[in-house]
Amino acid sequence: MTLMDEAKKGNIPPQIHKVAEKEGIDPEIVRKYVAEGLITIPKNVRRDASPKAIGKCMGVKVNANVGTSRDFVDVEDEVEKAKTAVKYGADSIMDLSTGGDLDSTRKLLMETVDVPFGTVPIYQAASSQKTVVDMTSDDIINTVRKHAEDGVDFVTIHAGVNQNALQRLRKGERVMDVVSRGGSFTIAWMIHNEQENPLYSEFDYLIEIAREYDMTLSLGDGMRPGCIHDASDNAKFMEFITLGELVKEARKSNVQTFVEGPGHVAADEVQLSVQSMKKLCHEAPLYLLGPLVTDIAPGYDHITGAIGGTIAGMSGADFLCMTTPAEHLALPTADDIREGAIITKIAAHAADLTRQGQREKARKTDFQMAQARRDLDWEKQFDIAIDSEKPAAIRQSRKTGSDACSMCGELCALKIVQDALKVNTK
Amino acid sequence: MTLMDEAKKGNIPPQIHKVAEKEGIDPEIVRKYVAEGLITIPKNVRRDASPKAIGKCMGVKVNANVGTSRDFVDVEDEVEKAKTAVKYGADSIMDLSTGGDLDSTRKLLMETVDVPFGTVPIYQAASSQKTVVDMTSDDIINTVRKHAEDGVDFVTIHAGVNQNALQRLRKGERVMDVVSRGGSFTIAWMIHNEQENPLYSEFDYLIEIAREYDMTLSLGDGMRPGCIHDASDNAKFMEFITLGELVKEARKSNVQTFVEGPGHVAADEVQLSVQSMKKLCHEAPLYLLGPLVTDIAPGYDHITGAIGGTIAGMSGADFLCMTTPAEHLALPTADDIREGAIITKIAAHAADLTRQGQREKARKTDFQMAQARRDLDWEKQFDIAIDSEKPAAIRQSRKTGSDACSMCGELCALKIVQDALKVNTK
Repeated sequence: MTLMDEAKKGNIPPQIHKVAEKEGIDPEIVRKYVAEGLITIPKNVRRDASPKAIGKCMGVKVNANVGTSRDFVDVEDEVEKAKTAVKYGADSIMDLSTGGDLDSTRKLLMETVDVPFGTVPIYQAASSQKTVVDMTSDDIINTVRKHAEDGVDFVTIHAGVNQNALQRLRKGERVMDVVSRGGSFTIAWMIHNEQENPLYSEFDYLIEIAREYDMTLSLGDGMRPGCIHDASDNAKFMEFITLGELVKEARKSNVQTFVEGPGHVAADEVQLSVQSMKKLCHEAPLYLLGPLVTDIAPGYDHITGAIGGTIAGMSGADFLCMTTPAEHLALPTADDIREGAIITKIAAHAADLTRQGQREKARKTDFQMAQARRDLDWEKQFDIAIDSEKPAAIRQSRKTGSDACSMCGELCALKIVQDALKVNTK
Repeated sequence: MTLMDEAKKGNIPPQIHKVAEKEGIDPEIVRKYVAEGLITIPKNVRRDASPKAIGKCMGVKVNANVGTSRDFVDVEDEVEKAKTAVKYGADSIMDLSTGGDLDSTRKLLMETVDVPFGTVPIYQAASSQKTVVDMTSDDIINTVRKHAEDGVDFVTIHAGVNQNALQRLRKGERVMDVVSRGGSFTIAWMIHNEQENPLYSEFDYLIEIAREYDMTLSLGDGMRPGCIHDASDNAKFMEFITLGELVKEARKSNVQTFVEGPGHVAADEVQLSVQSMKKLCHEAPLYLLGPLVTDIAPGYDHITGAIGGTIAGMSGADFLCMTTPAEHLALPTADDIREGAIITKIAAHAADLTRQGQREKARKTDFQMAQARRDLDWEKQFDIAIDSEKPAAIRQSRKTGSDACSMCGELCALKIVQDALKVNTK
């Protein structure tokens, strides 16, 4: 039985109890939303990580991508990155390796972390070939099965990249065409082989595989815009129409899904973009890669992503894929991952402060921080902070005798007004 | 004649021509908005810095605060910070010094930078006394005159902190009362001396001073919330009602103003907050200190501020005061200022991409970046980037033989799809 089977029957298995407790939501409500496909708890029957719930009324979750590239194959480094990501707040890890021994890397990373684990099987199918167009349809599908057997909790399937979307891409006026790696492999394959994308044409079979292992299907965003100019065009909307249809198919077989979204989107288009995706995909949990709200800040795309991620989370997105300072530039280091995790966590929390089901709980934390700040209780502030290390180091580096901070010292507004109001409390 | 005198007469003086050219807006439109008080170009008759326009249809501007504290008096350090801020994109500098020889520090800083220069005169009035409540009403007013005579382009005046606002503060349920330094000095003074705030009761006289030197009045946000919990309460709205009345008074005398706003505001309240301020203050240019969208990220408040700043700029805010990683913790270093400047500039640009009058121009830059990225033209990308140094260093540190980046190498989506579409372009 899949989790959705259970939920539809009215059962509340342990992972629903666990997430309900963490999220502060009645288990019966979580069960109901899992049954309806509005909450996804990715968990392969062969793996037993700490469950995380993504979707309606749940806190916004954060994913970290790790993995080798063809140019940099250092598995220990990737293990370190995965550990760092989880330490600093990532709720899930995706292995996007394309270099070295992919099977052993995946296995090692899965053993390293105790959070839901995702992959993009087509990376392995493509990486095993001389050029990506040499994959067979069977290579593509069989790699998905292999990952399911290995215990992967969720796989990205670029099933919306079909001839219909490709037609819109050709007719459109994009500057950057396709920037999704999986999307590009699929399109190159479709053009070269003059065939429909097997991830689309054989989606029924993928559902069977997913059902067998209760693996979640993350419906990939192959047409995601790579720049502000390309956002929210016909190719993108065409893909979402298809993904919405596939969400319905998966739900019929009680297979959990979430849907991936863009990308690069100007700040005033994020709400429209998120709400359209939610609508077209029947309120399936939404997993966003960004959105980055400008193209011109390489080196700072963890921040352009946090800006877009906050607006998106506020508008209904449920799951944010972190970007790092290395985005668009290079394979990230562990330090980049740490920075990306913290800053994406900030965006997730800023969104939680506004989200149905999470607002009250999230605000309690900020309230406690405000009290600690008012009381100039520094240890408590560092304790509550999303990252304790950096603020403690900054304060330590410029500490004075005062219990206030070195910005204002004895001219601290808090101290002055507290004293004034104490003297005269009429 | 003040700039607003000229504008109302239909004249277009050189600074209007200069900003109109920089902003890509018809000088006649800029003149009209200056006449109506919707655009402010701060410039003291005694100082001749590069003019910057703040307000309707103008790009969002960025201010950097520098200045000594009582605990850290290193004037050379502050000069370095001011230079750094302008180098990395600050459009104006405010000197918030409270330690050492304030007159010579201010003079030196004003000579250092070629951008509009602001101060908070009450800091000097208060710092000259043993405790802030010992200032006389004359000390407060005369320091404003002194700064005007020195050529300061804009001064923050906490004129909205009056008995009416204080009454709401006492009745309210704030956790942090007052976190504005100038606001706290004023309130402590009002309570101790049992008098109305002279910056409010003698506002007519302040207008005379401002008129004489064509100095802009920045109407300070003394009641700004210091935490998410305290946002958008009666004390804050009471202050805005007052500030709106004072904006009208200043406009009658053709004195330019802008209005300062909060502070700490949850992401879903930023638009409401900005639009209310704009409405109550008759569309005067709005200068925001943040807003920080969560309290629990000390060490990262340049980022919580960039998130809030983007949403605010999109909603109508015109001028963002940068925060730095040291916010709430310590006096910032030059390095903190560099980081704060770049990241606040990112927020300003992300907002410009959505703003009336700036949208088209801002999008051209992102379009050029997208082209450079598509073409894997790295030098051009670094050239267009808001900060060129960091992305170039990241790429250099993990460079490979490929012209793509080390994330994907030869599995670059851009290259693969470009090749595929070239082969088959039906």
